[in-house]
Amino acid sequence: MQRVYLDHAATTPLDPEVFLAMKPYFSDEFGNPSSIHETGHRAYLALTRAREKVARALSSRPNEIIFTSGGTESDNLALKGAAEAHGFKGHIITTAVEHHAILHTARYLETRGVAVTYVPADEKGRVEPRSIIDALRDDTFLVSVMYANNEIGTIQPIDEIGKELQRRKVLFHTDAVQAAGSLSLDVRSLHVDMLSLSAHKFYGPKGIGALYLKNGVVIEPQQLGGGQELKRRASTENVPGIVGLAAAIEAAELKRKKESERLIALRDHLIRAVEERVEGSLLTGDRVDRLPNNVSFCFPGIEGEALVMRLSEQGFDTSSGSACTSGNLDPSHVLQAIGLDRDVSLGSLRVSLGTSTTEKDMDRFVGVLSREVAKLKTMGNVIDVACR
Amino acid sequence: MQRVYLDHAATTPLDPEVFLAMKPYFSDEFGNPSSIHETGHRAYLALTRAREKVARALSSRPNEIIFTSGGTESDNLALKGAAEAHGFKGHIITTAVEHHAILHTARYLETRGVAVTYVPADEKGRVEPRSIIDALRDDTFLVSVMYANNEIGTIQPIDEIGKELQRRKVLFHTDAVQAAGSLSLDVRSLHVDMLSLSAHKFYGPKGIGALYLKNGVVIEPQQLGGGQELKRRASTENVPGIVGLAAAIEAAELKRKKESERLIALRDHLIRAVEERVEGSLLTGDRVDRLPNNVSFCFPGIEGEALVMRLSEQGFDTSSGSACTSGNLDPSHVLQAIGLDRDVSLGSLRVSLGTSTTEKDMDRFVGVLSREVAKLKTMGNVIDVACR
Repeated sequence: MQRVYLDHAATTPLDPEVFLAMKPYFSDEFGNPSSIHETGHRAYLALTRAREKVARALSSRPNEIIFTSGGTESDNLALKGAAEAHGFKGHIITTAVEHHAILHTARYLETRGVAVTYVPADEKGRVEPRSIIDALRDDTFLVSVMYANNEIGTIQPIDEIGKELQRRKVLFHTDAVQAAGSLSLDVRSLHVDMLSLSAHKFYGPKGIGALYLKNGVVIEPQQLGGGQELKRRASTENVPGIVGLAAAIEAAELKRKKESERLIALRDHLIRAVEERVEGSLLTGDRVDRLPNNVSFCFPGIEGEALVMRLSEQGFDTSSGSACTSGNLDPSHVLQAIGLDRDVSLGSLRVSLGTSTTEKDMDRFVGVLSREVAKLKTMGNVIDVACR
Repeated sequence: MQRVYLDHAATTPLDPEVFLAMKPYFSDEFGNPSSIHETGHRAYLALTRAREKVARALSSRPNEIIFTSGGTESDNLALKGAAEAHGFKGHIITTAVEHHAILHTARYLETRGVAVTYVPADEKGRVEPRSIIDALRDDTFLVSVMYANNEIGTIQPIDEIGKELQRRKVLFHTDAVQAAGSLSLDVRSLHVDMLSLSAHKFYGPKGIGALYLKNGVVIEPQQLGGGQELKRRASTENVPGIVGLAAAIEAAELKRKKESERLIALRDHLIRAVEERVEGSLLTGDRVDRLPNNVSFCFPGIEGEALVMRLSEQGFDTSSGSACTSGNLDPSHVLQAIGLDRDVSLGSLRVSLGTSTTEKDMDRFVGVLSREVAKLKTMGNVIDVACR
C-alpha cells in the first residue's frame, strides 16, 4: 500500500530538483568558503549565489540573510540576539499561539530580566493588530508574531502590525517557518525587521534555516567562534544545505501562486467533506485566513494521538496537537489559547497537504477518518487511558 | 590539471559511502522523528541507530550523545550550558591555543561574570597538566582543553589532565573537532565529561556535529523550543546529517589505525623534505605529539596568505594561520601564544593531508613550495603590502 503523507506542516520530502542542486557540494565542490584557495573560493561563490537567491525571494539585500541550522535557531537568534543587544532589560510582546521556539525563548528571557506580554488570540487564532498596539510600553523594544500558525493554520495580519510598529520604531520579528512556500515573503511589504525560515518546511533539506535581518538592526550573535555570516553566526557554512535552501525557496516562489490555488481548493473540499461526513467535527482556525495546506479539526470525546495512530495503520500520516508527555496527555497550548476545553482540544487532528496530495487521496481519507472516529467514539472515553 | 587538496584540517570531501548512507533520508525516508505516524517512526529509528553508532565509537551510552549543527555549536553548548547551569559565576580554565569557538565563548562568559584563566602553552604548543592543576581555584567548575590543535597539530595530554580533574570532581570538556578521525575518541579512557565533534572534519557532511555529555552532567540548553535531543537541543533533527555523521565516524574508526600510520609516514616524509629543501623553514608544533595529517611551518620574511595564493595557482590547496582582516594582516593567536614573533608567524603555512594524499603529490608539492618561497623572498618584504 502506497502511504499518503498528510503531515507537510511537520516536514516535507526534499524536492528531487533541489537534491540535484545540492549534490555537487557534498564530495566534488566540498571546499570551506573561508579558505582562500581555489577549492575554498568555489564554495564561497556557491554560498554567495545562494545568498543572492534567498535575498531575491524576500526582496531583501544579500547581506541581510543569515544562514542558521533551522527555524528554531533563527527564532532563538532573533529574540535572544535582540534582547542581549538591548542589555536584557525592557519589554517585548509576543502572542499566546506562537511555536515553542518563540514561547520557550520568551520564557527564558523573562528569567533574564526582560518583561514579556503574551497577547491573546481570538477563537479563530487571530491576533488583532490593536491588541499588539495596546500592549506597547515605552520600553518595548521587540514584537514577535508568527506569520501563520503551525497547528491551526491561521494567518496573522503581519503587514498591518508591521506598518504600525515601523511607525513607532519598534523592532518586529515574524516566525515565517510555517508560512514559507505558501505566503509572500516580501519583507518590504510585510514591514518586518527579522523573519525566520526553515528549509525542510518547503521541500528543502533539514538542518538549515535563515534569519532575515534588516540592515541597521543590531543583534548579538548567539553562536561564537569564527567570523562567518558577517560575524553574526559562527560555524563553517553548511554549503550543500545552504544551496538546497536557496534552490527550494526559488522553486517555491515560482510555483507558489498556482500551487496555493490548487491546495486551497483541495483544503476546502476536505473541510466540507469532513464536516458533512464526520459527526461532531469542529474546524479549528479561521475558515478563510488560513494556510492553503492546513486542515485542522477537533473531534470531541476522542483522543487525537490514538486517532493519528489508527490513521497511520490505514496508511495515512497525520498529526495531533495533543501529545503524550511522560505518561500524561498534554493538550496543545494553541488550542487552549483559542479557548477550547481540555477535552475538546485533546481530540485534535491536523491534516497538512502538499505537492503530492490529490483529490482522490482526500476522498479516500475522509472515508477512513469517518470510520476511525466512529470506532474510537464507540470505545467510550479513551482519553488519558490511551496515553502510554 | 588535477588539483591537490592539502587542507583537510579546514574541511574534507564527503566520503561517497557516507553519501550513500545519507541518500535515502532526503526524499524517501524524509519523516520528522517527532511524528508518531509510520513515516515519522522510521525516521526516529534511523536517528536511534545513528545515535547508537556514535555512542559505540565513543564508548559512551546513546543517551550521552547530543546532535548539534557542528563543532562550534557543540563548543558553545558545552561552555555556555555549563556556565549557565552554574549561575554564570565561578571560574573556568581553558588554554591560549584553543579554537575561536572556545576562546570567543570564554571571553563572552567573562562579560557575564565568569572568571577565566587562559593557561599558556609551551613553544611546541603543549599544555602541561601541571599548569592546569595549578590554575584550579576553589570555585573552578569547568576546564576546557582542545584534544589537538587545528593550526599546528600538537596533541594535548587529555587523558592525564582528565584523570586529575576527575579525581578533583571538576567538569572537563575537550574540543575534539580536529582530533576526530585521527585519535581515539574513547571518552572513558580520556576521562572527559564533554567532547565536541564536527562531521565535516572526518569525511562526513557539513552542518552536523555532536556533543558527548556524560550522564549526570547538567548543562542548560542553549537552543530552546521543542523537546528534541532529550530537551537539550531544540530543533527538528537533521536526519540525513545525523545518519551521515554516524556513518562517517564508524568508517573513520574502522580505518583509523592503518590510515594514521600511512599519514604519519607521509607527514614525516614531507617535514623532512621541506626542512632539507626550503631555506629558513621552521617547523611549528611538536615533532612527535602531532596529528598524523598536520604539517605546519613558518617561513620568516614572507607572507603566508600570499604563499597560499601562489600555491593555489599551482594547483595546491593549503592554508595559513595569518589572515587578512579588514585590510590588516592578523597573525595567528596560536603562533603568538607559542612565542613566535609577529613577522615569523605571518609567514605560516599549514598543509593537512588526507585519504587522497600520495607520496608523489608530496614530492611534487615540495618542489613547488621551495620555488614559491624563494620567489616571495626575492620580492623583498611583502608583508602587509600583499594584504588587500
